Amino acid sequence: MKVLEIEDIKRIVEKLGYKDFYSMLIRTLEEDYSNWESFDKTPRVANHVDGGVIELMPISNDKLYTFKYVNGHPKNPAQNKMTVMATGQLSEVSTGEPLMFTEMTLLTAFRTAANSAMAAKYLAKKDSKILTLIGTGAQSEFQYLAFSQIFDLEEIRYFDTDPKAMDKFEKNMKQFDIKITRCKDSREAAMGADIITTCTADKRYQTVLTRDMILGDVYINGIGGDCPGKTEIEKELVESSTVVCEFLEQCKIEGEIQQLDKDFTCTELYEVIRGEKKINVETHGTIVFDSVGFAIEDYSVLRLIYKLANELNIGKEMNLLPELDDVKDLFSLVEKK
Amino acid sequence: MKVLEIEDIKRIVEKLGYKDFYSMLIRTLEEDYSNWESFDKTPRVANHVDGGVIELMPISNDKLYTFKYVNGHPKNPAQNKMTVMATGQLSEVSTGEPLMFTEMTLLTAFRTAANSAMAAKYLAKKDSKILTLIGTGAQSEFQYLAFSQIFDLEEIRYFDTDPKAMDKFEKNMKQFDIKITRCKDSREAAMGADIITTCTADKRYQTVLTRDMILGDVYINGIGGDCPGKTEIEKELVESSTVVCEFLEQCKIEGEIQQLDKDFTCTELYEVIRGEKKINVETHGTIVFDSVGFAIEDYSVLRLIYKLANELNIGKEMNLLPELDDVKDLFSLVEKK
Repeated sequence: MKVLEIEDIKRIVEKLGYKDFYSMLIRTLEEDYSNWESFDKTPRVANHVDGGVIELMPISNDKLYTFKYVNGHPKNPAQNKMTVMATGQLSEVSTGEPLMFTEMTLLTAFRTAANSAMAAKYLAKKDSKILTLIGTGAQSEFQYLAFSQIFDLEEIRYFDTDPKAMDKFEKNMKQFDIKITRCKDSREAAMGADIITTCTADKRYQTVLTRDMILGDVYINGIGGDCPGKTEIEKELVESSTVVCEFLEQCKIEGEIQQLDKDFTCTELYEVIRGEKKINVETHGTIVFDSVGFAIEDYSVLRLIYKLANELNIGKEMNLLPELDDVKDLFSLVEKK
Repeated sequence: MKVLEIEDIKRIVEKLGYKDFYSMLIRTLEEDYSNWESFDKTPRVANHVDGGVIELMPISNDKLYTFKYVNGHPKNPAQNKMTVMATGQLSEVSTGEPLMFTEMTLLTAFRTAANSAMAAKYLAKKDSKILTLIGTGAQSEFQYLAFSQIFDLEEIRYFDTDPKAMDKFEKNMKQFDIKITRCKDSREAAMGADIITTCTADKRYQTVLTRDMILGDVYINGIGGDCPGKTEIEKELVESSTVVCEFLEQCKIEGEIQQLDKDFTCTELYEVIRGEKKINVETHGTIVFDSVGFAIEDYSVLRLIYKLANELNIGKEMNLLPELDDVKDLFSLVEKK
């Protein structure tokens, strides 16, 4: 069984370069979303614990089974730990054999950003130039990099309630050739935006973005509202926009649309990717993509990383599964000499 | 994060010796079962796939969160793979941080046997001498070893539809000082037994044990019926016995009692361990312990192994989690130089 550490993921991405890695990842996501019905889409399993939530996100089709372990503990930064940490595993469906265990904190950052950019490719204006980031935490630079694979961005406008998070973002963005504009609040950040990503971490109902902040038609990539009781976008803004979500059943529990009526329904992303529905800000006005992060995205990044790790010969082969001459003789592993 | 391979588990068990390891594991199980209400008992999540099932088994209390990944593919032996393979992880609840990832195929064998022996300690006759094993696959020798920690066994009677599985069992049992009796069928194996373990693997309704095979009062440890559509014990035998189960909600879906009425109810194991109910073959006649394998048992073995691995300094420390100066600066891991 292959085990991949943080260093291994870095090496894979470095060997390919960001550009190619993001392109491959976006292509893989499009492939998997296109095969939507082939997946056994089990809802994620959450244990709500003091101070946060711990989740398992399994999914399978007839070839592979993957799951991700991920926590969300908003108070972790105060004790110098990350809010979100993740690990994941990929197995062969025909035998159930685990093939790879890997870090997924980094992979989740990559796949979330790639998923955002892929959705925006279909839903946002083709000539989008101004990207607004509300929340400049761990996901922010990944968002910029992924969007810049799809759009010819000219400016990033951003705001975070934590000034240090904005300082960090500025430091990291120096290496890129893009105008960045620090704003005093969400309202200022939203001004003139073509695309707005809301990505904040507090586990409560918030309204980081309200209807009156939106002056023209804009594409809103809402990725921070992702569990029951955690939303970011004002109900009136969601109601007055065209909504697209990843997986209706899950988004009604965890997404921005948990604020709406129980019988609310909307387009799911796969329908747009397959071209069954044509939805774009140009024709539909302001769009809210209600993105909570779905297991199919983990599936995509895990199957891509497994393929790349094999091709590039990266990762450790470890004896996490018994190797037996007689498969019914597990005891041979532990018998006395 | 600590990673434990097969070799590491072997070393831990060897350092302690089977006897002490089983005693510690049984004690840990008793402790955790006694704190039954403190656990968040999420039902296991199963993906039913062609040729088998793939499951995640999460559980948590206010200190630790564990999950096990486990498959069940009855046709695997034909292609020289194990029917059941497992991995698992242990995390700290207060931060969600994963602390250990480990092989769990071997650990599952140990914890299943320890759980069987622990339950029998309360439910079977104290002077039980004859243990019958119906099914001599991967779990059989572990069963013997665990039971022999609790009972002064004099004879093992056994039957398996696969003669090679019986040959394997005989080879492995040579090292132990115990009379073993190969039988031509389940009926012969059950004769005179004090304890009968049914542990077969086929995913279908079977009756490896019927009421007419039971001549005196006996303790039946039913561990092979563990998913919907997979049972081993004749309905009439279950109905005419006193039934104890691990977790009523789960056993009604997966255990022998799935054959009974929906409103069937019975004692749960923790009530017996806490002494709230006194149930024993001596006073209640034939007892069926309907054991499907519950996440609390994985929790117990994972927390014990984590403690022992730390004390004995066994296992690899691997960089599966980002180490960051600024926890919001995940991008610092991947930025260009």
